[in-house]
Amino acid sequence: MLRVRLDNGVVLMEQAPVPDRPPGYALIRLLHAGICSTDLHLQRGYYGFSGVPGHEFCGEVLECDDLQWRGATVVGEINLACRDCDWCRRGLARHCPARTVLGIVRHPGAFAEMLTLPEGNLHRVPKGVTPERAVFTEPVAAACEILDQVKIPNGAEVAVLGDGKLGLLIAQVLQIGGSRVHLFGRHAKKMGLVERAGIEARLAGERLPVAGYDYVVEATGSAAGFEQAVAMTRPRGTLILKSTVHGKVTIDTAPVIVNEITLVGSRCGRFEPALELLAGGKMILDPLIEDRFPLAQAPEAFARAAEKGVLKVLLDN
Amino acid sequence: MLRVRLDNGVVLMEQAPVPDRPPGYALIRLLHAGICSTDLHLQRGYYGFSGVPGHEFCGEVLECDDLQWRGATVVGEINLACRDCDWCRRGLARHCPARTVLGIVRHPGAFAEMLTLPEGNLHRVPKGVTPERAVFTEPVAAACEILDQVKIPNGAEVAVLGDGKLGLLIAQVLQIGGSRVHLFGRHAKKMGLVERAGIEARLAGERLPVAGYDYVVEATGSAAGFEQAVAMTRPRGTLILKSTVHGKVTIDTAPVIVNEITLVGSRCGRFEPALELLAGGKMILDPLIEDRFPLAQAPEAFARAAEKGVLKVLLDN
Repeated sequence: MLRVRLDNGVVLMEQAPVPDRPPGYALIRLLHAGICSTDLHLQRGYYGFSGVPGHEFCGEVLECDDLQWRGATVVGEINLACRDCDWCRRGLARHCPARTVLGIVRHPGAFAEMLTLPEGNLHRVPKGVTPERAVFTEPVAAACEILDQVKIPNGAEVAVLGDGKLGLLIAQVLQIGGSRVHLFGRHAKKMGLVERAGIEARLAGERLPVAGYDYVVEATGSAAGFEQAVAMTRPRGTLILKSTVHGKVTIDTAPVIVNEITLVGSRCGRFEPALELLAGGKMILDPLIEDRFPLAQAPEAFARAAEKGVLKVLLDN
Repeated sequence: MLRVRLDNGVVLMEQAPVPDRPPGYALIRLLHAGICSTDLHLQRGYYGFSGVPGHEFCGEVLECDDLQWRGATVVGEINLACRDCDWCRRGLARHCPARTVLGIVRHPGAFAEMLTLPEGNLHRVPKGVTPERAVFTEPVAAACEILDQVKIPNGAEVAVLGDGKLGLLIAQVLQIGGSRVHLFGRHAKKMGLVERAGIEARLAGERLPVAGYDYVVEATGSAAGFEQAVAMTRPRGTLILKSTVHGKVTIDTAPVIVNEITLVGSRCGRFEPALELLAGGKMILDPLIEDRFPLAQAPEAFARAAEKGVLKVLLDN
C-alpha cells in the first residue's frame, strides 16, 4: 500500500506492506485525512519525529474483531492508551503515560491507504455528516476540550486570538456553546467564513484591548500571540492555551501573578461532544477546506498546507 | 518623623513631616515592620520604584475619624482601592485598576515612624497575637489566597518549592488547611523550623520527582524553579505561581499544553483568614524572625535581609 513518510523535513511517498492488525484492533481504509499544523511541525522536526504522520482522518473499517465495526465509516481517537493505569481508569486515557499517539508518537499515522487503531478508539460517523466533514472531528474535539476544562458562564464575552484552522473551529464551538465570541485575527477573509455563526470578527492591528476579557483563548501559535493574550486577560481571568507550537516562549510572569490570571493548557478532547456538534449541522466546515489532493500527491499537499494563510488541506484516498 | 527612602538602589534615612491624614484615613504609629523580598526587589528598581517602601507592618492608631479605631493595634490591607468600581463592588478591591499600594505603588509605605491608611483597610490584631507575629499577617494572607483560588481536596499531597520566607508560610498554611505538604528546598535548617507542623521537608537536589503532584506551589522566585515546578506537576494538575519576582522567564509551553496543566497566578489575599490562623496559634512564626533592627538602622536591616538564606528581618519603632 501507499503511505507518506516524513524524514528529515522531506515528505516522501513509499510502498509498504498492509499493517499487521493486533487483536482488538481494526484495519481501516482511509477515506480522507486532514493536514494539521502539528503535521507541519512534525515535518520540521518537532518531537524529533520521523515516520508516518496523520491523525485527522475518516475511514472505513475493513477488518476487526468486534463485528459491529465491519464496514462502518469511522473516526478514531488518536491516543492509544494502556487502558489499565490510573489515568485510563479515570477516563483520561488521553494522559496515559504509556500512550502512543496516532501519527505523532510511535504509532503509524493516517496518511496511508490503510491504518490500524484499537477498536476502543473508534467512533461511528453520525448520519448526515459527510466523511470530509468528519475529518474535522479531532480538531473540533480539541476545541470542545475547552468546555470540559473551563466553566464559561453562558453569554460571557470570550476573545479568541488567531484565525487559523484551529482558531476558526474554537470560535464556532464556543459561540455555539453559548459564549459571545470576539475573534481576533489578521485576515478579514478567513474570519468572514465564520461570521454568520454570530461571531464578531476583529482585525488584530497594533492595538488590542487591554485587560478586556475574563476568558481568552490563545490559538495563534506565536510567542507574540501568547504575550498579547496575557495582556488581553482581565485580572482573575482565564487564558486558555491551545497552541502546541510555541516551543520556548519568553514571558513576563509578573502580570500573570499580579493580575492572578489562570492559564489553562488544553490539548485533545473527547470525540463524543465533537460528533454531536458535527451532527447538529451548525458548524461551518466546508468553507474551511481550502484545497484537496490525492494521497499520492501528499508532498504537494504539505507544500500547499504550509503556504501562509491556507486553511485545511485534505488528502483523499 | 523618621522614614526610609529607596532611591536608585540606595536605602536612605530621612526626616519628613508627619503625613497628612485625609478624611476616612487613620494615622498609624509603626510598631514593627517586616522586610519582604518585594522590598529588596523594589530596592533593585523593580517597578521603577523610588519612595518609602514597606507593606508588612503592625501599628497603633493615633488619629482616625471612626473612633472605634483609636488606640487600636492594627494591621492593614495594602491595596488602597477606589471602593466604587466593579472590582471593588465584587469584593476584589485588591484588583481595583485605580488602586495604589502601600509601599509599592504611589502610597508611602510602612518603613516610617508614622503612616496613613484608609480605615476600611484596617484589621484589629486579635488578642494573644503579638505585634511581631502580626507583621506576618500580610504574607500569611498571600499564602491563604491559594485556598481562595484553588480547591485542594483534603489530604491531597501538595509540593511547595522554595524554603524562603514565603515558602515556609505557604507550607504551613496548606498543611494546617488539610493538605499533606512536601516542602522542597535547599536548606535543611530552614525547613527544619516548620517540620513539627507535620510538613515533610525534602532537600531539592538535582533530581526532583517528575509529574509527581496534582498540586504544586512555586515559591522559589527563580526562573529555574518555575521550570522545575512545571515538570513536577502531573497531567491535568495545578501549579500555583506565588513568586512575583521572576521578571522575564523563558518557558517551554509544550509540557503545559500537552499535559493540560493549569497555572494559577496568585498574589495578595484577604486578611480575615490570615488573622484567624494567627489567632489559632498553630503557625510557627517566631523562629522565622532571623534578625531585628531599630527603624533608624534600616540600611543595615536591608543589607541583612539581602544576605543569602536570611529569613524575616524586622524593623522596630
